[in-house]
Amino acid sequence: MTEVGIIVGSDSDLPKLKGCFQTLDDFGISYDVKAYSAHRTPHLVAEWIKQMESAGVKVFIAAAGGAAHLPGVVASHTVLPVIGTPIETQVSGGLDSLLSIVQMPGGIPVATVATGKAGATNAALLAVSILATANAAYQEKLRNYRNTMQKTIIEKNETLSKQGLYEYIKSLEAKK
Amino acid sequence: MTEVGIIVGSDSDLPKLKGCFQTLDDFGISYDVKAYSAHRTPHLVAEWIKQMESAGVKVFIAAAGGAAHLPGVVASHTVLPVIGTPIETQVSGGLDSLLSIVQMPGGIPVATVATGKAGATNAALLAVSILATANAAYQEKLRNYRNTMQKTIIEKNETLSKQGLYEYIKSLEAKK
Amino acid sequence: MTEVGIIVGSDSDLPKLKGCFQTLDDFGISYDVKAYSAHRTPHLVAEWIKQMESAGVKVFIAAAGGAAHLPGVVASHTVLPVIGTPIETQVSGGLDSLLSIVQMPGGIPVATVATGKAGATNAALLAVSILATANAAYQEKLRNYRNTMQKTIIEKNETLSKQGLYEYIKSLEAKK
Amino acid sequence: MTEVGIIVGSDSDLPKLKGCFQTLDDFGISYDVKAYSAHRTPHLVAEWIKQMESAGVKVFIAAAGGAAHLPGVVASHTVLPVIGTPIETQVSGGLDSLLSIVQMPGGIPVATVATGKAGATNAALLAVSILATANAAYQEKLRNYRNTMQKTIIEKNETLSKQGLYEYIKSLEAKK
Amino acid sequence: MTEVGIIVGSDSDLPKLKGCFQTLDDFGISYDVKAYSAHRTPHLVAEWIKQMESAGVKVFIAAAGGAAHLPGVVASHTVLPVIGTPIETQVSGGLDSLLSIVQMPGGIPVATVATGKAGATNAALLAVSILATANAAYQEKLRNYRNTMQKTIIEKNETLSKQGLYEYIKSLEAKK
Amino acid sequence: MTEVGIIVGSDSDLPKLKGCFQTLDDFGISYDVKAYSAHRTPHLVAEWIKQMESAGVKVFIAAAGGAAHLPGVVASHTVLPVIGTPIETQVSGGLDSLLSIVQMPGGIPVATVATGKAGATNAALLAVSILATANAAYQEKLRNYRNTMQKTIIEKNETLSKQGLYEYIKSLEAKK
Amino acid sequence: MTEVGIIVGSDSDLPKLKGCFQTLDDFGISYDVKAYSAHRTPHLVAEWIKQMESAGVKVFIAAAGGAAHLPGVVASHTVLPVIGTPIETQVSGGLDSLLSIVQMPGGIPVATVATGKAGATNAALLAVSILATANAAYQEKLRNYRNTMQKTIIEKNETLSKQGLYEYIKSLEAKK
Amino acid sequence: MTEVGIIVGSDSDLPKLKGCFQTLDDFGISYDVKAYSAHRTPHLVAEWIKQMESAGVKVFIAAAGGAAHLPGVVASHTVLPVIGTPIETQVSGGLDSLLSIVQMPGGIPVATVATGKAGATNAALLAVSILATANAAYQEKLRNYRNTMQKTIIEKNETLSKQGLYEYIKSLEAKK
Repeated sequence: MTEVGIIVGSDSDLPKLKGCFQTLDDFGISYDVKAYSAHRTPHLVAEWIKQMESAGVKVFIAAAGGAAHLPGVVASHTVLPVIGTPIETQVSGGLDSLLSIVQMPGGIPVATVATGKAGATNAALLAVSILATANAAYQEKLRNYRNTMQKTIIEKNETLSKQGLYEYIKSLEAKK
Repeated sequence: MTEVGIIVGSDSDLPKLKGCFQTLDDFGISYDVKAYSAHRTPHLVAEWIKQMESAGVKVFIAAAGGAAHLPGVVASHTVLPVIGTPIETQVSGGLDSLLSIVQMPGGIPVATVATGKAGATNAALLAVSILATANAAYQEKLRNYRNTMQKTIIEKNETLSKQGLYEYIKSLEAKK
Repeated sequence: MTEVGIIVGSDSDLPKLKGCFQTLDDFGISYDVKAYSAHRTPHLVAEWIKQMESAGVKVFIAAAGGAAHLPGVVASHTVLPVIGTPIETQVSGGLDSLLSIVQMPGGIPVATVATGKAGATNAALLAVSILATANAAYQEKLRNYRNTMQKTIIEKNETLSKQGLYEYIKSLEAKK
Repeated sequence: MTEVGIIVGSDSDLPKLKGCFQTLDDFGISYDVKAYSAHRTPHLVAEWIKQMESAGVKVFIAAAGGAAHLPGVVASHTVLPVIGTPIETQVSGGLDSLLSIVQMPGGIPVATVATGKAGATNAALLAVSILATANAAYQEKLRNYRNTMQKTIIEKNETLSKQGLYEYIKSLEAKK
Repeated sequence: MTEVGIIVGSDSDLPKLKGCFQTLDDFGISYDVKAYSAHRTPHLVAEWIKQMESAGVKVFIAAAGGAAHLPGVVASHTVLPVIGTPIETQVSGGLDSLLSIVQMPGGIPVATVATGKAGATNAALLAVSILATANAAYQEKLRNYRNTMQKTIIEKNETLSKQGLYEYIKSLEAKK
Repeated sequence: MTEVGIIVGSDSDLPKLKGCFQTLDDFGISYDVKAYSAHRTPHLVAEWIKQMESAGVKVFIAAAGGAAHLPGVVASHTVLPVIGTPIETQVSGGLDSLLSIVQMPGGIPVATVATGKAGATNAALLAVSILATANAAYQEKLRNYRNTMQKTIIEKNETLSKQGLYEYIKSLEAKK
Repeated sequence: MTEVGIIVGSDSDLPKLKGCFQTLDDFGISYDVKAYSAHRTPHLVAEWIKQMESAGVKVFIAAAGGAAHLPGVVASHTVLPVIGTPIETQVSGGLDSLLSIVQMPGGIPVATVATGKAGATNAALLAVSILATANAAYQEKLRNYRNTMQKTIIEKNETLSKQGLYEYIKSLEAKK
Repeated sequence: MTEVGIIVGSDSDLPKLKGCFQTLDDFGISYDVKAYSAHRTPHLVAEWIKQMESAGVKVFIAAAGGAAHLPGVVASHTVLPVIGTPIETQVSGGLDSLLSIVQMPGGIPVATVATGKAGATNAALLAVSILATANAAYQEKLRNYRNTMQKTIIEKNETLSKQGLYEYIKSLEAKK
């Protein structure tokens, strides 16, 4: 069963969502991905949403940039939760995308996450947390995910202590 | 025959377009007005566009605020020119509306005008200028419109000369 | 059983969330409301989140303005979905609140909605749509809600047709 | 017969309008291009507009950056539709250009399109759609253009299905 | 002899320049004022500039709002210094006006002052300081102006000391 | 002994700092207040700073709006900590003031607080916290201040529980 | 005799003003350049201004970035015209510098030009135009400068005609 | 004894604070550094603050980007002065970070410094200036630091005089 429907406004946005796909894969969540434009292919978007609903999808993720209407268009065709992911642009790092997605009128919400990489990963995690409201196993996995994040942070701080500040910074700069 | 199809995202936006309606009336141009939301009533928007095309409409005007998708949604359903009018909001006086309307992806343009009152009037004039590309009478009317504007400006400057600067300012302030 | 936990950064923000409370009441959803500040009372926020989780809450709504950390702080203490509602301020109509809520780092998402009234209503609807992923009755109610919105819009357009444009605008202006 | 008059504020802007020129060429539309500055050569701008009107031009496209007055200056000398294309700058990716073009006073509209590449292509398409209001062949071509866009999108999604998500992303990244 | 030519984009902007007119009057400087629009009456603007140059004007002040092209248009017709005064709008308190005036291309400068009241007064003072580069009497007057400002400030601080802080604040609030 | 030196760019800013004065009074901290402009009276500013240093002042608070140079000018004349308070303006609610104060070059820091009322109160509290680094009694007072804030919040939430949500909102709205 | 005093906030800004220096050299205007910080060396700034006034300087040019107080500080020490040049930063391409320079309080104007390269050249031209109000030779040179700009533009357009559009673009791209 | 507690939201921010660490080292001030996230490890942040207070820390420096809550979270757990350092992002060069840090509610101040490198150095200097309010030796060192800055500036200007302007610019450009 497909649990999440993911749609991007252009196939060129797919690489920017890698963090989203990998996070869902890590959680073992099934999803379908389409690159359909809200403006160039409005009918394909509408049809796909119906297919996804029939396939049992519980949450949508929609990513777009500029006049980023796609998340709102998806939300206009379904009552399932829709997560909007703003793709970065030249206008203040994606402020146009962000405002186009988040400033929805009363009645049709879009759950908006951050611009850029952090937003892509968080779109996946938000989808998991929504699925987890009815799935104790996913909730357990989310707790494990957070524990792992915390362990990584603790280990990094231990390395920082051991290496010393300037050595640690050097090794970070060497990795780039 | 209806020449212009006008659509607003909410009936509460209608008063903000008075300058648009009055300008079209002054030019003797017939139009149809609907208050259909891109998000709450996507199917009504799509149907109305088809009706308008059948009715012979040549240009669309679409006004919306916030995540102002309506002009883009109209443009996704027609190849006729679509004029987008951003309704003012609290976010920098409508910067969210403006960016949501103007930053359209390649392939589906929206002809965007200013926020606020000036934009409403200019949406109408832009529609007339488009109709005028195939209608010499309308082009003549546009030239007359400009001449009238110029005459008004010349008269005001004559009054300014006669009254003197501070008297003129006083009489302006008294009108408010 | 309490289904939604709502927290605002200051009790003076409560009137701005009326649309949120009334929407949840209309859907017959139980909720708990606290006015705890992320900065003035961090321990109370953390404790309340635990109580809410024990009480069976499935979704959190957190509203704040300015350096609006509250939604992120809530998200740092729970793996349940957290909806962030930016309260309007003087800085570009709440752009500071919006960015403080939405630009969360990878790992800890906040589902952000619009600034202002529309955001308050949509926070409630988003919460309902999340609960509805495991509750067919709520999903049905959401569909009815949309149908009612559409009927209202159709009726308004019928009135617009009957009254005529300028009469309709006059009656709107008279209501203010 | 020349159908479109195109003017840019500086010859260094010409490469940024390639998408505009190529789109007009694809539609078989004749145009004249000049690189005249509104500020450095106001008289040349005014003379060229008259020449273009005599040559039968029906639409103008004007592109400029920064204090981007050129589209407005063109609009002040003609009642034909003027399409304004904001050239990207360092100020929030061209927000200064966009606002200088779109915020025209009541009476003199400029049909503004997006900043950047998308805007250049859309300026051409908007010009075609305006010409198409009196030219059924152009309207047919616009429909074909949209169909081609849709076919390309459908094909890309078929490739995406066949290749699988991560392979498709890899091949996209390889193209860069 | 007229020393300063002042032009505003709309007669409705005249009251916003009161501080400018009064400052010039206080310095005993002669000026001519016209309300000519750059877009509605481009020819009147160009003619007036020539008249002013013949009349011996040494500096221009041009005020405009929104797509505030007027100062730049004046600068394109003269090599005399042009002072641009941005009129406040709804877009971030006049950020559109400010950027339209200040972001001039290389070759044609506009000396831009602040938005709002402070800008109107400072446009006059800047004009005086330019005239003063060849007029020792004006330079003396500018020094007196500053001395008077300083005396006023010293007197206010003396009153503040005498009245006490809270009394002084009360008397300020009472004046509003 | 005077512990804090407070300077505002204009006496008209004094009412906006009431929260600052009252907070310092509540903590029993002595301060001197002057309304000296960085631009109109640079010498008075420099002299006053020296007087304050001789008087034993440990911290400066400087408030200004627009091109808000005053805090930076104070910081250029002393190595004591300088707290900058941006006064709200029309430009995005004081974004110009904020950036003018906070974006200081390396070498000369200004400790910037929020725009508006919250900033005025916080300027005082930050000054107290700096004095408290060498004054255990002030540190105790700061802890009491926070405890009082927390108690007020707890009491408000108790009232909210007792009155019920809608009654509480009504009583808040009645107070306005 | 030195005619223009130029000051930059940091010697690292000098390369960004090359267009300013070269333009003044082209006009044969003598100037003095110092890299003195308003914040790190306030006394050196004040002393230098006095020296410049004694040396017969008629105009100041001050360039700075970020909390760009230098132009305002110069203006606070002289009644001569001060031209402010905002150096580009990461914040929206120098919006912080621009606002810090232009939003001066009433009484102390700064004649602000554009951010970036265009601004540097225009600072020089504005200085020349101010000197030219009392120097017919400079005014003649300014007219020649404009004529040269116009000739260059006409020649470029002739090349554009001869080469054809796509060849011209190619040759432009080859130059980069 | 540790005098300053420094915390960053992510270890990847450490290289951006090099100027902070080196400045504190230059002043001979002891500090502890941790890379703990406000959102991923809220409990570690709270515990560390207590440890630091027991260790005798007098000032905190907290750096973060995006929804930069860390400085505010630190301030919510201590009454010691907290210095907030906004890390640059894609959104207008860190405007999101800056607003998230500076716009704190009344009661809990954060002493905010500039975005970028200047801010990192200034965070250290501000910490020193706070420690110096009770430490004459540090105050002396701060005065020496300023004197050294001034000497460097004077030397640079001497080199500028000797080398000549264009040579000096060339040598600067060669260093890059």
